[in-house]
Amino acid sequence: MTESGRIILVTGGARSGKSALAERLVARYSRPWTYIATAEPRDDEMRERIHAHQYRRGDSWSCIEEPTDLCRALRGSDGKGVRLVDCLTLWLANCQGAADIRELVTTLRQQSCPVVLVTNELGQGIVPDNAMARAFRDQHGWMNQAVAEIAHEVWMAVSGQPLRLKPMRENIDEEI
Amino acid sequence: MTESGRIILVTGGARSGKSALAERLVARYSRPWTYIATAEPRDDEMRERIHAHQYRRGDSWSCIEEPTDLCRALRGSDGKGVRLVDCLTLWLANCQGAADIRELVTTLRQQSCPVVLVTNELGQGIVPDNAMARAFRDQHGWMNQAVAEIAHEVWMAVSGQPLRLKPMRENIDEEI
Amino acid sequence: MTESGRIILVTGGARSGKSALAERLVARYSRPWTYIATAEPRDDEMRERIHAHQYRRGDSWSCIEEPTDLCRALRGSDGKGVRLVDCLTLWLANCQGAADIRELVTTLRQQSCPVVLVTNELGQGIVPDNAMARAFRDQHGWMNQAVAEIAHEVWMAVSGQPLRLKPMRENIDEEI
Repeated sequence: MTESGRIILVTGGARSGKSALAERLVARYSRPWTYIATAEPRDDEMRERIHAHQYRRGDSWSCIEEPTDLCRALRGSDGKGVRLVDCLTLWLANCQGAADIRELVTTLRQQSCPVVLVTNELGQGIVPDNAMARAFRDQHGWMNQAVAEIAHEVWMAVSGQPLRLKPMRENIDEEI
Repeated sequence: MTESGRIILVTGGARSGKSALAERLVARYSRPWTYIATAEPRDDEMRERIHAHQYRRGDSWSCIEEPTDLCRALRGSDGKGVRLVDCLTLWLANCQGAADIRELVTTLRQQSCPVVLVTNELGQGIVPDNAMARAFRDQHGWMNQAVAEIAHEVWMAVSGQPLRLKPMRENIDEEI
Repeated sequence: MTESGRIILVTGGARSGKSALAERLVARYSRPWTYIATAEPRDDEMRERIHAHQYRRGDSWSCIEEPTDLCRALRGSDGKGVRLVDCLTLWLANCQGAADIRELVTTLRQQSCPVVLVTNELGQGIVPDNAMARAFRDQHGWMNQAVAEIAHEVWMAVSGQPLRLKPMRENIDEEI
């Protein structure tokens, strides 16, 4: 199964099985599979998480590490099969307020091969008491909405279980 | 399309597209549309958020500002079309522990025109380490349950995508 | 209606109606109903929560209190009808890092009577800034995934409304 430029967004909380779900969605497509890692292994905790993810994926993947210039990584890897971006949250954090979400959306729409993107649900806890965390949460929510809007599919992982959010099951313009 | 007293609850995390979804649900009904704002523009951050919401709504709405006496605002605006309450979370916070949730539920059941209410998901992060935040989170969760119980429809916004929670799709009383 | 060893997981945020949903799922089965409480009433706040739960359940239940050795409580209560474990989050916290999740999964698979388990969504807020909270959140997420994987049904409560996550409604291996 192949289709040009299909965009698939996978969201979910921490340790909800987002990456594993994203990999199942990638496995719909024939190889090669390219993993675009936005994580920078700055400390041991992060290094351990990255290794756990790599271990699960095994040798079927080629890997691009790109903490900030995600658009370049997408353009450079296009035309050679499906890509998995893991994850948008770290990309946004790495950009330190200078992320161009509009450019990301434009770049995604120009892809000729499919892209599966992992992001996080950050906004369902109590309001954070520092302004920087609130600002990041806001920008992150807008990013999620912007990517979900152009995505062909949106999924949420909850306790490892996939829930489809888009295409929707309901017609919201009619009373039920 | 009009129906007397229909109650619709929209929940979701921060920047999840709750207000935009609530406005789509209001747009099912013919005008006039009344916006009941519970926000108090106490600082620049809040003022900016309120303006962003007003900008999106444009001139099609009349607006009532009522930070605490929500029941009075509902009674006073009834009989003139659909109302959008944005949001219950700020109302509860503004009441500083003195919110009468039972009175809110009673008032909602007495409305002859539809009401769409926006609220937040606050309880899906790590347990807050101060008792006041926990107490607010508890009261807020009970408020959400009480309003959802009498609502005809409950929706959750996730990354801007609407998910219907009520009416349910499943019969929970039977094994699957 | 009875079936041997059925495992049902109920997740949700704080004050989302998880316990009430779990009790409705227990009520599918004929009595006796056994409640396995993992809470330890260490302070007044906790004592009050436990009493509120007991009050709602009334006299139809027998109760086992077991803060840490959940597997023993499951084995000891098997063969006498359905059990409700409330909740896995407190059990994990009570075990202080020494919880054996693999043993829990094995024990659950060996049950001949149904078990309904309550857990929490903890990972959908902003990333906690202390490493211990992050480590707990991670372990908790893995526990939820492990139990959900072997469960026959997984439900999420949102504002008191039940949402079914498993069995899934979608085939994720096909494009939509």
